[in-house]
Amino acid sequence: MVADKSRRRFLEAAGAAALASGLASHTFAGGPQEKSGGASQKTPALRPFGFVIHGGAGTIERSRMTPEREKAYRDKLSEALRAGFEVLNRGGACLDAVVAAITLLEDSPLFNAGKGAVFTNAGTNELDSSIMDGRTLKAGAVAGLKRVKNPILLARLVMEQSPHVLMTGDGAEIFAQQKGVELVDPKYFYTEERWQQLQKAKDAEKSPPPKRSKLEREAFSLKADSAFDEHKFGTVGAVCLDKAGNLGAGTSTGGMTNKRFGRVGDSPIIGAGTYANNETCAVSCTGDGEYFIRTVVAHDVSAQMQYGGKPLAQAAESTLERVAKIGGTGGLIGIDRQGNFAMPFNTSGMYRGWIGPEGEPHVLIYRD
Amino acid sequence: MVADKSRRRFLEAAGAAALASGLASHTFAGGPQEKSGGASQKTPALRPFGFVIHGGAGTIERSRMTPEREKAYRDKLSEALRAGFEVLNRGGACLDAVVAAITLLEDSPLFNAGKGAVFTNAGTNELDSSIMDGRTLKAGAVAGLKRVKNPILLARLVMEQSPHVLMTGDGAEIFAQQKGVELVDPKYFYTEERWQQLQKAKDAEKSPPPKRSKLEREAFSLKADSAFDEHKFGTVGAVCLDKAGNLGAGTSTGGMTNKRFGRVGDSPIIGAGTYANNETCAVSCTGDGEYFIRTVVAHDVSAQMQYGGKPLAQAAESTLERVAKIGGTGGLIGIDRQGNFAMPFNTSGMYRGWIGPEGEPHVLIYRD
Repeated sequence: MVADKSRRRFLEAAGAAALASGLASHTFAGGPQEKSGGASQKTPALRPFGFVIHGGAGTIERSRMTPEREKAYRDKLSEALRAGFEVLNRGGACLDAVVAAITLLEDSPLFNAGKGAVFTNAGTNELDSSIMDGRTLKAGAVAGLKRVKNPILLARLVMEQSPHVLMTGDGAEIFAQQKGVELVDPKYFYTEERWQQLQKAKDAEKSPPPKRSKLEREAFSLKADSAFDEHKFGTVGAVCLDKAGNLGAGTSTGGMTNKRFGRVGDSPIIGAGTYANNETCAVSCTGDGEYFIRTVVAHDVSAQMQYGGKPLAQAAESTLERVAKIGGTGGLIGIDRQGNFAMPFNTSGMYRGWIGPEGEPHVLIYRD
Repeated sequence: MVADKSRRRFLEAAGAAALASGLASHTFAGGPQEKSGGASQKTPALRPFGFVIHGGAGTIERSRMTPEREKAYRDKLSEALRAGFEVLNRGGACLDAVVAAITLLEDSPLFNAGKGAVFTNAGTNELDSSIMDGRTLKAGAVAGLKRVKNPILLARLVMEQSPHVLMTGDGAEIFAQQKGVELVDPKYFYTEERWQQLQKAKDAEKSPPPKRSKLEREAFSLKADSAFDEHKFGTVGAVCLDKAGNLGAGTSTGGMTNKRFGRVGDSPIIGAGTYANNETCAVSCTGDGEYFIRTVVAHDVSAQMQYGGKPLAQAAESTLERVAKIGGTGGLIGIDRQGNFAMPFNTSGMYRGWIGPEGEPHVLIYRD
């Protein structure tokens, strides 16, 4: 049985994963920590290099997953982990690993990034991405792309080949063209599943619960969307510690199904969706973008380490509690310079995985 | 010779900027702190309510200012301070004061925001703005607007009448239209002075110093631009403590002269250009947007207070040193819940002012 198998794998992973927190037993969502005996357990770190990815947090429940679908996710996440590993194992730089893994996830229809991006209210796809180098604090980000096949590649070029950090819309695509980045016909981003998700979101909007203000209805439509869209937060991201001891982070997304008005979430916002600093950690987020922006999540984790002296797992937990306090859900992945990593989330699931020097990919999906 | 001239000016600017970071005594840059005896002196606080604004930091030198021009700036900044005061004095809310002051500055051609916005490389004007409520941590932001007369008004509507935080480009203007926000013909933003600044920036680009890579030339053209554009950072902003004890912040800008590729700076980025949190402070920034994004400036000030236990002025100084460390220049204004405020900058000048319950506007421009 696949379910049994994945349970077994999970338990195996749990031991290895034990990682995280060192904190609250729910950091790892019923994972390693509880198994390994609770809060005082030390986190096994990924040393001398490590790579952690996510494929989005949200309503992901075992009962609604087919074995085939689960396998597809596990395989693709493992492939992305191995791609990062290959780069790091041969002494490559953090951001090369981040880009290698994220382009793979962007090219898969499984995740809400690149090929699998969700549709806007207008029936278009608008992609956002960002990347940050913990050594130099250089960063690049792009928002509102319609024709760039791999937004993470463009984010990196913005960082490395322009004096800017954030480029948006048509202007960003002119830059892409000048730099020879692969552009595709917007039809490339069409997938039947995402299209159906848009139709459902629109239907839900037409029949909102009664006696609500327009704003409440809009807010409701966001929630309603998540009710039947397990991939609402299918954003992808990667964080990394390389052999040279440098940290890096990257994030890529298609944003929110049915989004309007050129809405941009946290993914392309340095400090919110992505942050990396060799003095502290590298972080990539996934969740209710608006709440993550307001909490400045990725930088908040770093700041709690830097100014508050908290270890990564504790800082990540604490920041996520701040998000929850104002009503936001989601998760994040983080890694520090000692190779400690954390993958907390407050949704029912988060596609996530890690790989260390032993070269074995570990993938988790559900909370338990 | 344009090259020589801009080189000389650049060096002058460099010297002035060397003041940079600095700590203590010039925090207030000729303001209350120095007058009252230096670094160890307590900052006079604005209680029970206070309002602080900036009109941009940059190369602003007394020797290059005419008396008429200086008077125009002082008058407009005083008017904006009084507008904020009126709101606060009658018990109005922070964000009403912020919006009242910023719309006045946006309507003036003196500042790089609204009417006085600088031109992009394409000869267009693209405006950005953001606002944040320290009580609720709600925030709104807009980027890449071409027809919205007062971007700060739209940022506030995004916060209050949509489930989103950040809207960009055409989409944001569709939202503006739906909400009845005043749209203007893009020609409204034409001012002869800004147009000439664009031409100078383009000329400088054509004759960059030799033996530089394309990236260095681009970076240089940013610096060269500032050499003859004293208003490079003419961004405007306001922070506020109201009688109810709530904090709020807002920022508005036309961005960078000659900007390309849909470049967006720190002004519409919550956490970078604007942040407010009743637990700590309200902050609005102005400066090299890219460096301010990478340092997540506004949130960093708050985090140093919250997690590091620093008082506002010290936190603001420390954050600005982080900006300077990676090569960035600019300034910020901040106010905390006790009415303490700070206005540090590491450029030669920053248009700035404050007003407290006594109703007397105080305006400063230069460092000395």
